[in-house]
Amino acid sequence: MALKVQKFGGTSVADIDRIKSVADRVTKSYDQGDRVVVVLSAMAGVTDKLISLAESASSSPDSRELDVLLATGEQTTAALLAMILKDRGYTATSLLGFQAGIITDHSAGKARILDIEANRITALLEKKHIVVVAGFQGRDEDGNITTLGRGGSDTSAVAIASAIKADVCEIFTDVDGVYTTDPRICSKARKINKISYEEMLEMAILGAKVLQIRSVEFAKKYNVPVHVRSSFNEEEGTMVVNESADMESVVVSGVTCDKNEARITLKKVPDQPGISATIFGALADANIMVDMIIQNTRSGGETDVTFTVTKSDFKKACEISEIVAKEIGATDVLTAENIAKVSVIGLGMKSNSGVAATMFKALASENINIRLISTSEIRISCVVEAKYAELAVRVLHTAFGLDMEEM
Amino acid sequence: MALKVQKFGGTSVADIDRIKSVADRVTKSYDQGDRVVVVLSAMAGVTDKLISLAESASSSPDSRELDVLLATGEQTTAALLAMILKDRGYTATSLLGFQAGIITDHSAGKARILDIEANRITALLEKKHIVVVAGFQGRDEDGNITTLGRGGSDTSAVAIASAIKADVCEIFTDVDGVYTTDPRICSKARKINKISYEEMLEMAILGAKVLQIRSVEFAKKYNVPVHVRSSFNEEEGTMVVNESADMESVVVSGVTCDKNEARITLKKVPDQPGISATIFGALADANIMVDMIIQNTRSGGETDVTFTVTKSDFKKACEISEIVAKEIGATDVLTAENIAKVSVIGLGMKSNSGVAATMFKALASENINIRLISTSEIRISCVVEAKYAELAVRVLHTAFGLDMEEM
Repeated sequence: MALKVQKFGGTSVADIDRIKSVADRVTKSYDQGDRVVVVLSAMAGVTDKLISLAESASSSPDSRELDVLLATGEQTTAALLAMILKDRGYTATSLLGFQAGIITDHSAGKARILDIEANRITALLEKKHIVVVAGFQGRDEDGNITTLGRGGSDTSAVAIASAIKADVCEIFTDVDGVYTTDPRICSKARKINKISYEEMLEMAILGAKVLQIRSVEFAKKYNVPVHVRSSFNEEEGTMVVNESADMESVVVSGVTCDKNEARITLKKVPDQPGISATIFGALADANIMVDMIIQNTRSGGETDVTFTVTKSDFKKACEISEIVAKEIGATDVLTAENIAKVSVIGLGMKSNSGVAATMFKALASENINIRLISTSEIRISCVVEAKYAELAVRVLHTAFGLDMEEM
Repeated sequence: MALKVQKFGGTSVADIDRIKSVADRVTKSYDQGDRVVVVLSAMAGVTDKLISLAESASSSPDSRELDVLLATGEQTTAALLAMILKDRGYTATSLLGFQAGIITDHSAGKARILDIEANRITALLEKKHIVVVAGFQGRDEDGNITTLGRGGSDTSAVAIASAIKADVCEIFTDVDGVYTTDPRICSKARKINKISYEEMLEMAILGAKVLQIRSVEFAKKYNVPVHVRSSFNEEEGTMVVNESADMESVVVSGVTCDKNEARITLKKVPDQPGISATIFGALADANIMVDMIIQNTRSGGETDVTFTVTKSDFKKACEISEIVAKEIGATDVLTAENIAKVSVIGLGMKSNSGVAATMFKALASENINIRLISTSEIRISCVVEAKYAELAVRVLHTAFGLDMEEM
């Protein structure tokens, strides 16, 4: 008997039959004595369809009105699930974001949750209702409808779990949990049973799509135990929880690969104060997010500056770099689109000094050249040529002892 | 320069191009200096699609949750129109029923408006916004989403017009206005320039689909001038207004025809107190609405009781009548499905005694037999065989001088 938030994503509510399977799942928990709040996404594909519709109305749809439109997606699935539950004789009530008391800031399209006024949810739970909340949406302090951005239903679920002090927030998805790496790249990938918020956050940032980044930040901040598991079977998935002593015995928990970046190098930049500010100020003015930045020392008062941006910003970043290069007297701008960022992540790095060496040795053993390196407290990332990305993932997976044991 | 509510129905917002035409219409008024509140229905067909979706989830969808689902229809069109208006540089804001302050009772699916808290609408109007309200929906006092039933957007529009003291409530539709009769039946039907609330109400009740009955009741109660006009052209339509002296010069304003009823007769019912109560009590217990009731006096302490019900209730009403007939000792139950109710409506009847005679004479001139007659202060209805319905409409239209003059 537990207080649970259960979140189901778009593929889990893709059609009426799938929503009926969600109802099976939810009522099973309820019948076991659990109190359940269900958080739903829109049916798979619906949000994209609504965006297309908006784009046929306006080339740049007004963000407030786009939120009003997009909110219909989760409204639909929440109403349908509540109907199915009531049809089966359960007491259930759907709540839209504003009814569930999800208060956000005014940033239409990517609103941040400021507060959850959970009194209506808790009152319904006390009356033994299954509460079905439309995810992804809230309202700002003026009563406007807002949405939380892609994957926002994860954040809705974690935030509600935090507000009602749920025992667990279960995120049902189309995979079995969080894996040591992408199983499509490495057949020996293993499901991770338990992972810390910090590691999960690094993995989400580095492209593991299983949880939205902000939902992990929220879970970490409010210490909400998150259980990532499959909506297709009853297996235990991955628990995302606070760091604990036993976790540090594992040096590396996962390996990720991100092919969504491109590299730009400004050659022979004068090594003077303020030059970096000029380069990255110009990029920031154009709203371009820079990921890695490396500055190599050269002789003769000159240096090379290299950085990476997402592929979608690449063209614009190149144009700006050419202009800035002339301005500051850099000799050349070199670019590379065919790169991949391969990373190893693990809490154990904090107390283990040999991780970088192991990583570089493993890559060298396959003659994979490292172009850029960056590190955080629990992560090491190397940029390599894109064609080596999958090989790099597999060799690192083996090198850090992550391979699944043969059955 | 006027304060206007403009309501557009499903065919007027059927797709993005049609919604753009609505934007043309609205901005034209706005550019002329009018302050405008727009009320929209869902795209034509969408409400039916949502009902089918609900029926695939549950054989009898919960009414509260059905309202949550159906409300997405008007939410979609309101957001899209607001986007288009903003795209064209106008300040515009969409409001859902609950945001527009439309407070209803708790009757999900057929809620009645209790109050309009129009302060948000008026504040936006003062800031020169075009306010786009999702029709058909409101919220009850507990914050649940409710809907107003079929055609409810008309009622939303009239209620808002009343609350903000609009100069006029324009109902844009796919016809040019209210006609003296159905132009598909009678080619000489004329558009009525001005009609009283009372007449419009009778015509709506008798099957003229141009305005929802409750919207007319609302307009009458709060004295809201309603302008029914085409969304496809700029012609003046029909003004629905308070009764005025000049209206009584026209004896009959319109002729209607309703084929949606069926007739049941109980033969030789004992002419005793309480017998009618037994018959109609049993029908009422089964939630069957009875329209006309006629009791013919017969000799020998017996009488025939005839009544009409809608065709959808006919089968059930027959079963109940058979049971009741046995109970009370009636000899027979006769039924007729192929009937039509032809009515003439006009304020002028109040002060004109010859209307019934003219009606009966006109029908007799074509050998149309009258099976039942009922009257109100401003209406006379005759039930005739269905095959004569169109002929009856045309002959009455001519007899009361309604025919369009030849060009």
